[in-house]
Amino acid sequence: MTYTLVLLRHGESDWNAKNLFTGWVDVPLSEKGTAEATRGGELLVEAGVLPDVVHTSLLRRAITTANLALDAADRHWIPVKRNWRLNERHYGALQGKDKKQIRDEFGEEQFMTWRRSYDVPPPAIEAGSEFSQDADPRYAGEPIPATECLKDVLERALPYWESDVVTDLRAGNVVLVAAHGNSLRAIIKHLDGIDDDTIAGLNVPTGIPLVYELDEDLRPITPGGRYLDPDAAKDAIAAVANQGR
Amino acid sequence: MTYTLVLLRHGESDWNAKNLFTGWVDVPLSEKGTAEATRGGELLVEAGVLPDVVHTSLLRRAITTANLALDAADRHWIPVKRNWRLNERHYGALQGKDKKQIRDEFGEEQFMTWRRSYDVPPPAIEAGSEFSQDADPRYAGEPIPATECLKDVLERALPYWESDVVTDLRAGNVVLVAAHGNSLRAIIKHLDGIDDDTIAGLNVPTGIPLVYELDEDLRPITPGGRYLDPDAAKDAIAAVANQGR
Repeated sequence: MTYTLVLLRHGESDWNAKNLFTGWVDVPLSEKGTAEATRGGELLVEAGVLPDVVHTSLLRRAITTANLALDAADRHWIPVKRNWRLNERHYGALQGKDKKQIRDEFGEEQFMTWRRSYDVPPPAIEAGSEFSQDADPRYAGEPIPATECLKDVLERALPYWESDVVTDLRAGNVVLVAAHGNSLRAIIKHLDGIDDDTIAGLNVPTGIPLVYELDEDLRPITPGGRYLDPDAAKDAIAAVANQGR
Repeated sequence: MTYTLVLLRHGESDWNAKNLFTGWVDVPLSEKGTAEATRGGELLVEAGVLPDVVHTSLLRRAITTANLALDAADRHWIPVKRNWRLNERHYGALQGKDKKQIRDEFGEEQFMTWRRSYDVPPPAIEAGSEFSQDADPRYAGEPIPATECLKDVLERALPYWESDVVTDLRAGNVVLVAAHGNSLRAIIKHLDGIDDDTIAGLNVPTGIPLVYELDEDLRPITPGGRYLDPDAAKDAIAAVANQGR
């Protein structure tokens, strides 16, 4: 018995395009991102990988990506589950800030620490600030963060991974997780057993399904999985690494 | 304690626009239908009626309508449930046929009987025919029909109404049901206690939320509920009644 997991990072958002730190700010897909999402669904059809159930974050760029990809794959009718634990990393006080400006202001080293260190979060966002989610009804009653490093993301994503995603995999479903750069990096770190330093160099391209076949113990049969469009994935990974330059 | 239910018929589909019997054939929204769905979400915001959970059929015109309306209302993140029991009436052998052609071929009386009689279904669709859903994976293992009258729709929709929709209402949620002309007529017949003859004259316009406040016994406080855009609803109801002419 093997299990099939598909990870899909949302297409380009308005703020990816503008080079702003987004985090939990709920921005829509750009026109390019909309096309990427549909293309993601077409890649699923071409590969014959048809999800039976989808999990999304509570952010519209992941939700819309799932909607468009599943519609393109004629799987718009499958069961849907949403959870804040699949949200993007909370970028704290950096949310809404220009990446290049932060880099110029704080220098390359601090910039890269905030972007890529495993366990150093940016400064916490102030309660009530423009880009805070304190009063957002979708998080009412949930223990939501005011900033996060990747380690924090992993620690809040794993309980949902175990309770909901693994349960759907074990039931024999092809499971699609439509989420974000950092929540997917957290899942990949867990699946592939990547160490805390190496994960810094791993980027996930937008809109290209990453398929993992998992063994009985939910370990990847091929480490790193396989992108359904490997050439496009390679180019996109290089582009992500150059953000903020 | 009162409960709030919102019924939303999908926006115009490609086949509404072409005047074809659609039933369970899974056609997309037209451009007009897409705009109607978004407008439906804006009406929810204007009225301050914000769904906590959404139920849809398994057909993309209802699913896309829910997605677009909820995105416009900033409620794209709420829990979603889907069930074939909210599907449009199965139109049997009429699926894919031109409404005007059927009317010319079989005459006004037979045409109106198939469209509007409470308990006379059209001829059953042939298994394996172009517009049949026998092999569709979304219905695997379900007791799906080969044709339906409105009575059949009511009988298959009510078990889901009781088991899932009522449960969400009783939990205090504002519940959105995004579905179809006939599955919504079935629910309205049940809620308002409309008799078998009178229901023939009731039409539901596309894309205009119909809000019911329900009492402790889930009876409408105002019979018939209220459309969030009453003038547009009146015009649209007249247009539906004239289809096939």
